Amino acid sequence: MRVIIDAMGGDNAPREIVAGAIDAAKELGVEITLVGKGDEILSAMKEKGIDTLPEGVEICHADDVVSMEDDPTSIVKTRRNSSMVLGLKILADGQGDAFISAGSTGALLSAATLLVKRIKGIRRAAFSPILPNNGKSCVLIDAGANNECTPEFLMQFAFMGSYYAKKALKLESPRVGILNNGTEETKGLQLQKDTYALLKAASDEGKINFVGNIEARGVPLGDADVIVCDGFTGNILLKTFEGTALLMSDQIKKIFLKNLFTKIGALFCKGGINKMKAKFDYRETGGTVLMGITKPVIKAHGSSDARGIRGAIKQAKECVELDFCGDIAANISQMVLPRDE
Amino acid sequence: MRVIIDAMGGDNAPREIVAGAIDAAKELGVEITLVGKGDEILSAMKEKGIDTLPEGVEICHADDVVSMEDDPTSIVKTRRNSSMVLGLKILADGQGDAFISAGSTGALLSAATLLVKRIKGIRRAAFSPILPNNGKSCVLIDAGANNECTPEFLMQFAFMGSYYAKKALKLESPRVGILNNGTEETKGLQLQKDTYALLKAASDEGKINFVGNIEARGVPLGDADVIVCDGFTGNILLKTFEGTALLMSDQIKKIFLKNLFTKIGALFCKGGINKMKAKFDYRETGGTVLMGITKPVIKAHGSSDARGIRGAIKQAKECVELDFCGDIAANISQMVLPRDE
Repeated sequence: MRVIIDAMGGDNAPREIVAGAIDAAKELGVEITLVGKGDEILSAMKEKGIDTLPEGVEICHADDVVSMEDDPTSIVKTRRNSSMVLGLKILADGQGDAFISAGSTGALLSAATLLVKRIKGIRRAAFSPILPNNGKSCVLIDAGANNECTPEFLMQFAFMGSYYAKKALKLESPRVGILNNGTEETKGLQLQKDTYALLKAASDEGKINFVGNIEARGVPLGDADVIVCDGFTGNILLKTFEGTALLMSDQIKKIFLKNLFTKIGALFCKGGINKMKAKFDYRETGGTVLMGITKPVIKAHGSSDARGIRGAIKQAKECVELDFCGDIAANISQMVLPRDE
Repeated sequence: MRVIIDAMGGDNAPREIVAGAIDAAKELGVEITLVGKGDEILSAMKEKGIDTLPEGVEICHADDVVSMEDDPTSIVKTRRNSSMVLGLKILADGQGDAFISAGSTGALLSAATLLVKRIKGIRRAAFSPILPNNGKSCVLIDAGANNECTPEFLMQFAFMGSYYAKKALKLESPRVGILNNGTEETKGLQLQKDTYALLKAASDEGKINFVGNIEARGVPLGDADVIVCDGFTGNILLKTFEGTALLMSDQIKKIFLKNLFTKIGALFCKGGINKMKAKFDYRETGGTVLMGITKPVIKAHGSSDARGIRGAIKQAKECVELDFCGDIAANISQMVLPRDE
């Protein structure tokens, strides 16, 4: 298995990307292609004390880099020699099994859709991060790829999220819920109401396990395993979750550091606190899968360090092994609405 | 000052509502009118060991109660003798200065709009809770009154939230931000883009202090003092915040209760932990003001206990004293777009 990595994307590129990739190659037994400026990648390796490319690690030189200021929809043309575009091209060509980038989210979405293509029948690809909750975690889909959605998009997200949760979270029958402003069937905007009808019908036919509308409060509290929403709403949920977790972690830290007694208290609880930290740490959970594309494409956090990249590579390996893309393609007839044209 | 209270609204009515109201009457020196079934209110008082009405506390008998199943938009007709409708009527008639209910949110919004009316020029009333953050707290407006909004609604929310934050949070120049999926001016749906232009113009004229788009992550982290959004998005943010805070509190509790050592650790940190709990406890912060109505109308949390009701009464008193409604009415010309008709 070969994982292609955009060595130039993200706040800490290429140093941390290269470091994480080399660690993962050894630990996880995957082959790696680092795409980016050859000289910069080599000096990042030297910084890590490595003079020759480890076995299974290759460099694919790319002159250019996608910047956060680029118009995401046109980078395939304007940045044709960038590490992101080139990396996606060699994925599409079959020179690797998965692609990871910590660069521009919008550019990755657009370029992956154009170059690696959506699975036939899938209307839109969606970001589907795994969020910690009070149980076995849950899948949020879409977390930001599509601001505006139709009920059919959301129905497809529900199916894709369900296949993903089955394998990635090891759930026999993942509970699928629509994110809404109340649990009653009549709640929400027209989008949520129409999606409700589609998912109810799919559930009645035994295709998915639809549990109805869920409130945002119920997401961290484990009310559903797959949370279906448009990308704008999903972004608000994801970022509120992150911000609140950060605020509370910060408050707890301040409590522990207040005086000698609280510092002693903190020592007693260290094991549990570290476990909790890990649960809420994106570096442990890896990146976010772009669901609906023909091959695994993963967005790593923009501020990923070596550990974050290693996490994303672990996730890419899982995606290839568990073959979510294959599940979606095999079941596409279940999740396409008849079209007039 | 007289605060009118729906004694029959919420999960713990009338017992906890009556208990909280009587405590507050004494402690805060406000007069109270309890609206609801007279016999039930009297037995709730007896349970508390009170046989005669305390000075300044009155009962206004109402035969009927609004239920959570009622269609919110028609309760003014279908539940004309309910505690909520009667309470709002006597507020509109001038027999009190503010109204509080822990009953149905939708019914309160609809009945307050019909009976107490919006301030002339205000297009929509909005729920505006105060959220804890890493600083002096912030105002979220709208948190759920209006699923669908126009840019003008959001502009008005920005002004109303700004006046509210000035006095309630004691901020000279509250930083107003649009809740969005990114900070760049071009982010979001058409609603956010058009609102951006309106708020930028208002800010350039010195009417408000607009700081641009903010991400949901920045809300708990204190990026703005007034968070402007449509009610659907506001509901998602508010409930995600609540759920995440609950999840983390629960995790911390489990860590502390794990064994003897962690319990000792918890003892050392008790003071700080209790302070943090209070910060995230809705019972301390009171209820949510329905901004844009001619007189203060406050939604108390559905599960309010006596302490929650006391908090809401404290907030009602503040609303009357600081006269937010007057600020809005006095400045209405600043926040109305010219109309074609």
